[in-house]
Amino acid sequence: MKTIDIGLLGFGTVGSGVVKLLQENAARLERKVGAHLRIRRIAVRDLGRARPVEVDRKLLTANPAEVVADPAIQIVVEVLGGIDPARACCLEALEKGKHVVTANKALLATHGVALYRAAAEHRVDLGFEASVCGGIPVIRLLREGLVANRITSLLGIINGTCNYILTKMTEEDRPFAEVLAAAQARGYAEADPSLDVGGLDAAHKLQILASIAYDTPIPLERIYVEGIEAVAPADIAYARELGHRIKLLAIAKESGGELEARVHPTLIPTDHLLASVGGVYNAIWLHGDAVGSQMFSGRGAGQMPTASAVVSDLVEIAHNIVFGRPSRPSSLALPGEAAELKLRDMARVRSCYYLRVMAIDKPRVLSRISGILGEHNISIASVIQKGRGVHAAVPVVFMTHAALEGDMRKALRTIDHLDVVAQQTTCIRVEGDED
Amino acid sequence: MKTIDIGLLGFGTVGSGVVKLLQENAARLERKVGAHLRIRRIAVRDLGRARPVEVDRKLLTANPAEVVADPAIQIVVEVLGGIDPARACCLEALEKGKHVVTANKALLATHGVALYRAAAEHRVDLGFEASVCGGIPVIRLLREGLVANRITSLLGIINGTCNYILTKMTEEDRPFAEVLAAAQARGYAEADPSLDVGGLDAAHKLQILASIAYDTPIPLERIYVEGIEAVAPADIAYARELGHRIKLLAIAKESGGELEARVHPTLIPTDHLLASVGGVYNAIWLHGDAVGSQMFSGRGAGQMPTASAVVSDLVEIAHNIVFGRPSRPSSLALPGEAAELKLRDMARVRSCYYLRVMAIDKPRVLSRISGILGEHNISIASVIQKGRGVHAAVPVVFMTHAALEGDMRKALRTIDHLDVVAQQTTCIRVEGDED
Repeated sequence: MKTIDIGLLGFGTVGSGVVKLLQENAARLERKVGAHLRIRRIAVRDLGRARPVEVDRKLLTANPAEVVADPAIQIVVEVLGGIDPARACCLEALEKGKHVVTANKALLATHGVALYRAAAEHRVDLGFEASVCGGIPVIRLLREGLVANRITSLLGIINGTCNYILTKMTEEDRPFAEVLAAAQARGYAEADPSLDVGGLDAAHKLQILASIAYDTPIPLERIYVEGIEAVAPADIAYARELGHRIKLLAIAKESGGELEARVHPTLIPTDHLLASVGGVYNAIWLHGDAVGSQMFSGRGAGQMPTASAVVSDLVEIAHNIVFGRPSRPSSLALPGEAAELKLRDMARVRSCYYLRVMAIDKPRVLSRISGILGEHNISIASVIQKGRGVHAAVPVVFMTHAALEGDMRKALRTIDHLDVVAQQTTCIRVEGDED
Repeated sequence: MKTIDIGLLGFGTVGSGVVKLLQENAARLERKVGAHLRIRRIAVRDLGRARPVEVDRKLLTANPAEVVADPAIQIVVEVLGGIDPARACCLEALEKGKHVVTANKALLATHGVALYRAAAEHRVDLGFEASVCGGIPVIRLLREGLVANRITSLLGIINGTCNYILTKMTEEDRPFAEVLAAAQARGYAEADPSLDVGGLDAAHKLQILASIAYDTPIPLERIYVEGIEAVAPADIAYARELGHRIKLLAIAKESGGELEARVHPTLIPTDHLLASVGGVYNAIWLHGDAVGSQMFSGRGAGQMPTASAVVSDLVEIAHNIVFGRPSRPSSLALPGEAAELKLRDMARVRSCYYLRVMAIDKPRVLSRISGILGEHNISIASVIQKGRGVHAAVPVVFMTHAALEGDMRKALRTIDHLDVVAQQTTCIRVEGDED
């Protein structure tokens, strides 16, 4: 049986998972591929460190360039994380005619097009199923399974840390900071959680997903990003009262030849399938013009789910090698091939909104605020007035019909300047009511 | 731009959907494929019939053999349905070196291996994404996305008609026959509904899914099948009281080197993701050793979802033609390649059970029935006793812990012979409690 040699860059959580999976499922994978998948070299940061999986110490090197340079290696797996030296290693491997499999969402979201182009130019494959949603094969779903569809709408719960925190806040009625600390203690949140809770990790993944779904390269900096740090237990409670849950959603939509791409806390109806995706689970809900709505859910991170995605790419590439199948370049690699979708400015995005206004003078506040909203073409769907204080600030909660973000921002500036409004109004977008 | 010629066998609902999708999304598909997908011939039953999509009448022929024989046609799409003449047409097309895409679950479930082998022998592709779960790309998921996993358990809601009927029975507390009649009136059930409500359609699909998931050909007649005809409103009500829903599940599980494959009404906990899949929606829930649990849901049938799956296969095959990629034979095609998993006899399957015993003499019945269950190694998890009649039959509802099917059948024979038992006991299997 043929042997296909693999070079591994990085031997942390995911790297060990890949080795483990190749070891444990060796017989099955050989049968599927028609070849033996052999790890030939592993680049590590610390040669002396104990490893959770057993490998021949002679495979290890502290120099990733040695792995990339090895002429016997046909596939390089990059699980270093971060931009450097991952970017240079991947580009060099592609230029040397090696196939590359990467789990690196930050790298793809910032330098994806250069990588796709290098792969196309050197006629090799670039696999990145592991970069988004861990073990859920969402890249394949969008590129192959749903290829016949125009995706009109894609809503994703794609950051497990945020979903875990929001789920705990909802179930246990506890504030953000307290739940974050508990999540850190349990290993569900990083010591520096800002990339996750600030929404940037989800934006990285949305950049990859939306680029594939809409076949158009999306500049990361054009994605609107808002994290979950400001979500208050009060908002979760009012959302519940209104039949909604709050989730951090990554949203991509196409309409009128324009694309919108955004990440922010979002109210979704309790009976929406996404509302039942709790804890560290990820899910993609989408609407295609032919298939209608579909949802895919599963573990979005973790050692073995991510390793599963890496190995699925390895199997596909190895199978192609065995059967002499040339690689298929991504249309994102080919200038002029990709569709040119204009990105919609956030100010021109339409959405429904949840507003929590902290009002001092309740009797007058409702008419004044609804007046301001009306002046900005925002119509109110429902109002809840809470509390009885006349002098203390009490919440007045509004749900609006669809309105322009630009109009909402202007209205909020006026509202927050009112003498009857005690603090900055909380504004959270709402999705899924019209579906 | 290159043109790839397609022959269409069948121009009913799905056939028209394929033509419509190729017409409406032509520009997108050309960009994805790098070639124009052209329908060259269409075999129809009735040349004179009006068609919902516009095609050149000259493309139509009443003779499918003419389509298969056309040397310019590179891909044959079979959407005739039924075994004959679909089988002969597909085999002949494969033998002539044409790729075949089929949506025909009955054909694959009964003659799949012969088709896989013919495709492998003639080095062409056989696409059948459309045969299971309509627009949900579950074949690709199992074959590619989750290839690194051993699938320990797969639970599917894969018959939309049954799911619609059970959902309506649950929501509206109406009996089976009444809801079936309403479903027929709305076009959600066939005039002859037996293939759907009797479970055989789900068994066809499970045969295809499980053969792919476990890489082993499964004889259709070895799949245990029970339909939903006997599900009573009372059982739906007790299931609800016990925190469960009743669904028709297709189940495949691997343990101890053996595979079990079965289709039957099943109680699942209300908080299981599958419980929220209502109406005509389909879903596959599975557990892989690396990914953990995942669920995929969407429309499992209908013109455009099914056409979406057909076109996804067309795009993949056309792309391979454009890039000169040889086909990848299914390992199911190669004798000795597929894993040899033994199918477990139904009597040796372990499951939890719901029992509704109609008892005449309530005071004595509980001890006698629990005694019989105990003698057959079946332990009771909970009991609900309903009603007050002493002489009239009243229901006693049991939930059991996991037990062997063979033991349960023996116990039921004894129970149903008791003088205190008024009618045949209702027995429904329970899944998902242990997950």
